[in-house]
Amino acid sequence: MAEPATITPAPLLKDELDIVIPTIRNLDFLEMWRPFFQPYHLIIVQDGDPSKIIKVPEGFDYELYNRNDINRILGPKASCISFKDSACRCFGYMVSKKKYVYTIDDDCFVAKDPSGKDINALEQHIKNLLSPSTPFFFNTLYDPYRAGADFVRGYPFSLREGVPTAVSHGLWLNIPDYDAPTQLVKPLERNTRYVDAIMTIPKGTLFPMCGMNLAFNRELIGPAMYFGLMGDGQPIGRYDDMWAGWCTKVICDHLGLGVKTGLPYIWHSKASNPFVNLKKEYKGIYWQEELIPFFQSVTLPKDCTTVQKCYIEISKQVKAKLGKVDEYFNKLGDAMLTWIEAWDELNPSGAKSAELPNGALK
Amino acid sequence: MAEPATITPAPLLKDELDIVIPTIRNLDFLEMWRPFFQPYHLIIVQDGDPSKIIKVPEGFDYELYNRNDINRILGPKASCISFKDSACRCFGYMVSKKKYVYTIDDDCFVAKDPSGKDINALEQHIKNLLSPSTPFFFNTLYDPYRAGADFVRGYPFSLREGVPTAVSHGLWLNIPDYDAPTQLVKPLERNTRYVDAIMTIPKGTLFPMCGMNLAFNRELIGPAMYFGLMGDGQPIGRYDDMWAGWCTKVICDHLGLGVKTGLPYIWHSKASNPFVNLKKEYKGIYWQEELIPFFQSVTLPKDCTTVQKCYIEISKQVKAKLGKVDEYFNKLGDAMLTWIEAWDELNPSGAKSAELPNGALK
Repeated sequence: MAEPATITPAPLLKDELDIVIPTIRNLDFLEMWRPFFQPYHLIIVQDGDPSKIIKVPEGFDYELYNRNDINRILGPKASCISFKDSACRCFGYMVSKKKYVYTIDDDCFVAKDPSGKDINALEQHIKNLLSPSTPFFFNTLYDPYRAGADFVRGYPFSLREGVPTAVSHGLWLNIPDYDAPTQLVKPLERNTRYVDAIMTIPKGTLFPMCGMNLAFNRELIGPAMYFGLMGDGQPIGRYDDMWAGWCTKVICDHLGLGVKTGLPYIWHSKASNPFVNLKKEYKGIYWQEELIPFFQSVTLPKDCTTVQKCYIEISKQVKAKLGKVDEYFNKLGDAMLTWIEAWDELNPSGAKSAELPNGALK
Repeated sequence: MAEPATITPAPLLKDELDIVIPTIRNLDFLEMWRPFFQPYHLIIVQDGDPSKIIKVPEGFDYELYNRNDINRILGPKASCISFKDSACRCFGYMVSKKKYVYTIDDDCFVAKDPSGKDINALEQHIKNLLSPSTPFFFNTLYDPYRAGADFVRGYPFSLREGVPTAVSHGLWLNIPDYDAPTQLVKPLERNTRYVDAIMTIPKGTLFPMCGMNLAFNRELIGPAMYFGLMGDGQPIGRYDDMWAGWCTKVICDHLGLGVKTGLPYIWHSKASNPFVNLKKEYKGIYWQEELIPFFQSVTLPKDCTTVQKCYIEISKQVKAKLGKVDEYFNKLGDAMLTWIEAWDELNPSGAKSAELPNGALK
């Protein structure tokens, strides 16, 4: 089951993957990524003041969208795309025409593995996405498809083919992805532990998906990757990726798709301001106590056979069950529908191609 | 949430932990473990010919039971203890009077961490057992209670206290724990990947529990650690630990207890004969295709508030639902009841003390 020992020709999936970067500043950080990213197409989503000029280092192939572009392309449906929050990145997922998306924050740099070698994060994500996931039973030696590993004794043979991988969630060395209270309590904590593992998050288990270093198969799960209503005019921030992660995981579980976490690491250079974060997060910190049980109990009917159908069903349940937590969730539920309408407009064949073959539902 | 930075006084839990070793040979392997095991009491379960003399290196404190002892102590109930199979080790769990048990195979040696330092496997297991588990939500930075780690953004605060840890499942460098078919296909594969992680296996997820390097809290979960009917006179072998793991995980999930896997590693020195293993395993290999769905669907009623009650309920379901797979499971279901009767006889206060406080059920 291990990957073959041949050397893989770089760059993998050059014409099938877009790199989506939300930003408010010049993209000098790309210099460090040049050896790994330059062959790929970038989609830059400029947040904040559209009159500001974002400089992109020479030699990169990119398209850039600012708020004026988003408003022009989506018209009234632009209301579903957040402003003054990195949640705006999901606009990039929508306008991509590729099968795969990798998204990274502009304060993330190339990390080194324990041998001191630069980590090609994108290559590892692609490997994760191209090998199956194993959500139905836990393998104690982690990813059974890696070289040098396999399924251990007691792992049912009928489950060893795995399922298609929809999401690859990478991690961060240096500044860990903590919430504001933890940042305040542990301002000096740094993540120095390199855990050499990739694993499937089991079916039925939710996880906190971070958007800092994330790849996914747009064809399989794209319409679920909506980063919600955050930032300007909204009562909450820093829950954009979490929201997308909870929706995505529930839908992957329903459709029999896999979510992996672990390698690759990036180097997260700068902790954001914990006081600012606290202001953005504090509603989320108590809302999440209701959101997690909600997502743990969501069930999707059998006729939800596409990501879009699943997502629309979740939006209804959000309004029905979370609307009473706060009026915000009614607005969010509506925005989820708007997002799907906009997605299908920009991806007219997507709704059809995302239909899974009969019997793929687990 | 990290463990305090103080130096822990060794040896931890000296008077609260027994080391259980099943064997058929002289225990020379203990020489290598002397710095770590010598302070602890050993329970040696001698398998096979009881007239054979097992030599134990000088200086170890131990009690040894052979088949004659087992028959004498348990009388007719000795039928539940396997013969000519390392499943006999669970007799040691039953006669222990300690709160914690560590069990290890006699072909397991001290492994080295990536810095070249000898790994004190027992100490790591104890740390795993003494820190909580987090079965209800996945933490992407692995064990949040380790030094240098914590709960990441988006992890509900109400779940950060965790639950008591019942089981610590350690891993193996060198010879991986593969089934016979995988051994045959990959005779030269060695596990060289040191994954510096401990994690909780999420609620609702089953895993293949290996008995080679395993620790548990006897008070919390002991009666579920029955290694079944294997070996002499039985149609199956090498599923003893798997069976215990499936029962244990289902009961831990029901009672709100945690199961951890990952560190520590031991060095597994010798692959067992794959041809012999195939003969022992082949029924298990197809039975497990029915066993996994069975254990995935087991539900325990609310009035199952002790491990014993849970276990008896599972034994009934085994007979009702697996009896039709093979007559063996009717025999195994009966043996599960005998095991609990024997356990309660030898641990008269255990049944009572294992009752959890009201409201502990999740």
